[in-house]
Amino acid sequence: MAAAAEQQQQQQQQGFRPLDEASLVAYIKATPALAARLGGSLDALTIKEVGDGNLNFVYIVLSDAGSVVIKQALPYIRCVGDSWPMTRERAYFEASALQKHRGLCPDHVPEVYHFDRAMSLIGMRYIEPPHIILRKGLIAGVEYPLLAEHMADYMAKTLFFTSLLYNSTTDHKKGVAQYCDNVEMCRLTEQVVFSDPYMLAKYNRCTSPFLDNDAAAVREDAELKLEIAELKSMFIERAQALLHGDLHTGSIMVTPDSTQVIDPEFAFYGPMGYDIGAFLGNLILAYFSQDGHADQANDRKAYKKWILKTIEDSWNLFHKKFVELWNKHKDGNGEAYLPPIYNSSELLCLAQKKYMTSLFHDSLGFGSAKMIRRIVGIAHVEDFESIEDASKRASCERRALNCAKAILKGRRQFESIGQVIVHVQSFDRD
Amino acid sequence: MAAAAEQQQQQQQQGFRPLDEASLVAYIKATPALAARLGGSLDALTIKEVGDGNLNFVYIVLSDAGSVVIKQALPYIRCVGDSWPMTRERAYFEASALQKHRGLCPDHVPEVYHFDRAMSLIGMRYIEPPHIILRKGLIAGVEYPLLAEHMADYMAKTLFFTSLLYNSTTDHKKGVAQYCDNVEMCRLTEQVVFSDPYMLAKYNRCTSPFLDNDAAAVREDAELKLEIAELKSMFIERAQALLHGDLHTGSIMVTPDSTQVIDPEFAFYGPMGYDIGAFLGNLILAYFSQDGHADQANDRKAYKKWILKTIEDSWNLFHKKFVELWNKHKDGNGEAYLPPIYNSSELLCLAQKKYMTSLFHDSLGFGSAKMIRRIVGIAHVEDFESIEDASKRASCERRALNCAKAILKGRRQFESIGQVIVHVQSFDRD
Repeated sequence: MAAAAEQQQQQQQQGFRPLDEASLVAYIKATPALAARLGGSLDALTIKEVGDGNLNFVYIVLSDAGSVVIKQALPYIRCVGDSWPMTRERAYFEASALQKHRGLCPDHVPEVYHFDRAMSLIGMRYIEPPHIILRKGLIAGVEYPLLAEHMADYMAKTLFFTSLLYNSTTDHKKGVAQYCDNVEMCRLTEQVVFSDPYMLAKYNRCTSPFLDNDAAAVREDAELKLEIAELKSMFIERAQALLHGDLHTGSIMVTPDSTQVIDPEFAFYGPMGYDIGAFLGNLILAYFSQDGHADQANDRKAYKKWILKTIEDSWNLFHKKFVELWNKHKDGNGEAYLPPIYNSSELLCLAQKKYMTSLFHDSLGFGSAKMIRRIVGIAHVEDFESIEDASKRASCERRALNCAKAILKGRRQFESIGQVIVHVQSFDRD
Repeated sequence: MAAAAEQQQQQQQQGFRPLDEASLVAYIKATPALAARLGGSLDALTIKEVGDGNLNFVYIVLSDAGSVVIKQALPYIRCVGDSWPMTRERAYFEASALQKHRGLCPDHVPEVYHFDRAMSLIGMRYIEPPHIILRKGLIAGVEYPLLAEHMADYMAKTLFFTSLLYNSTTDHKKGVAQYCDNVEMCRLTEQVVFSDPYMLAKYNRCTSPFLDNDAAAVREDAELKLEIAELKSMFIERAQALLHGDLHTGSIMVTPDSTQVIDPEFAFYGPMGYDIGAFLGNLILAYFSQDGHADQANDRKAYKKWILKTIEDSWNLFHKKFVELWNKHKDGNGEAYLPPIYNSSELLCLAQKKYMTSLFHDSLGFGSAKMIRRIVGIAHVEDFESIEDASKRASCERRALNCAKAILKGRRQFESIGQVIVHVQSFDRD
């Protein structure tokens, strides 16, 4: 088996070649599943490379009759100048997760037209303008009235339907085994989310000198380090559902009517709270960045209220939809809560309450960990980075950091998302 | 890959034939790894079948010059008359776990001489007399002065060295993926430990009519059902270490000087507390059964004290050895607690305390679940079954059941094993 896997890997290495525009056209012509999406004539394609070139090539390919996006993984990622070797097999997990999640939630996951494992190449739906990356919309101060509803729908469906609440243990463990191989991506997360921010690490950075002491305080905070250890273990050990694995506001494309979740190359079976927390935590970051984007034309006060409302609605709608799915499928294949045991609506309701409370606290923990790492770790967010005045940026970041630290430490005290909102607002003063 | 696996499975089915004594001799002669253990002449072997014939054939094979045990898995298990189909692949996981655990703890795990996957056949060390099954020794009232020390050693080494405290995430996930395939055995555990005792199930039984109401009370105990759901999820989702998976007192062979752990066919990556709890819980069952074995010659009072002492020592020594291993290997490959983060002995000590407290509570939870299922579930223990007077047996069982229920519900309140011992004693009155 090991030998077979090795051989397969070698073949894949042999079959791999990074595409440029010319070879891309040839590739499309030779691939019916892609050619068909672009219509008959493939001689007048418009091709635009939109990847940042550091992780993947991303080509938008347009013809008179159609469009596709071609995403090809490169065998490394590049951060802060250096490149880290990184398996191209992440494309396989990205394609697998897109296909699985689209099957569960077609409204919010783009279609995969074609996957070529040897080439680490995904051909998928072009998510057309006016879709933009949600993070950019949040920076611009654009309201998305359906965002909470859509993301609640996406999270409830992808998490519920890949958990033991819906699947037999046999099916669940098959999925777990499959995604164990995406371990390189999990290790990257471990390092940048759960380790580096809490130690002196080469690539850590912060808005210096303003936040130097804040970053040092994170590295010296025993209570924080005890909490992060627990979350890190849970992240690796607990195969609760098939996660997106990187569900921040840069992995979501939006218009006022549409929400599309992309880029699940970190997909693995992990704790549900990691996905939920990523989304909520990044909304809280967006909230704290708003003062840095306020100007005379727009003080962003109304927009901040909308963000808070979106955070609150996202959790509450997720909760509602998730429990609805649970009730709807309680007599299905899932073996976690067998009807003959949880045999009254009162008891099932108690079990659900316990489950959801635990999930809520996990989400708050992971969400605050994701916030912290964006302020004192390697990868920062454009929400703050785009605030040019470093002093103002640092002030926004500090409030977010202090808020996150308090949530991480005290997460088990929160009984509702409303209480979290009040907590967030309490940090929103200079 | 799926096709390859299927083909392999078919070949294995083709290669499988249950051995009888005659074909066993031929098999041994044709297998150098076994023949060598028995010395030159293989024509005067003494063969004894000691398996119960329901799960596996177990042959003891003796020659003038040596000995082996041959264990062959059958494609079903038989319980209460009916047979359940059960993959013979459990032999593969048993052999793998024996080999892995023996590498980590050679003093307490027998050597595997030979494994034949197609035949589901393990050739291993014959654990010679005066070794007996620990459970039988406990029923006979025999003290094993080194038992706690040996089992603490076994549990500390097998659990620590297969956890993220010692291994990289990459190695850990490889192991997790491998053992995901032993899912049929996990499902059996799920059913008989975490489900059936809490519902009306065909094979449940209890010492009737004495315990009928007690069994019904378990099925109607909402608090108990909420706790068992949490443990069940943890059992399936949490890949903390490579467990034995069935570490009761029937899986341990002892003399006063030697302790050998056998039969890990339920091995999988699960929560450490499941193994620890199985051992401690079965000792508590043995404790509560003693009054049923008392007679004029031996009131078993001193023996009961020895059992309690063994429970206390087992946990305390396990705790000591486990933390010692952690300290010894804290600068190794394990990535869960990186030295640059947990960078003072005080902080590491706090982290260990938190980890061990959580593990203690898990162990109490799983241990009490294992006790409950042995009283109102399908598979009972000889400790109680061998008490002929049903009324007396029921009285012993009821005290064990009530003790277990209270531990399961209140496990997070216990701060030391000493408190648990006091709690156990408090149920030891008629």
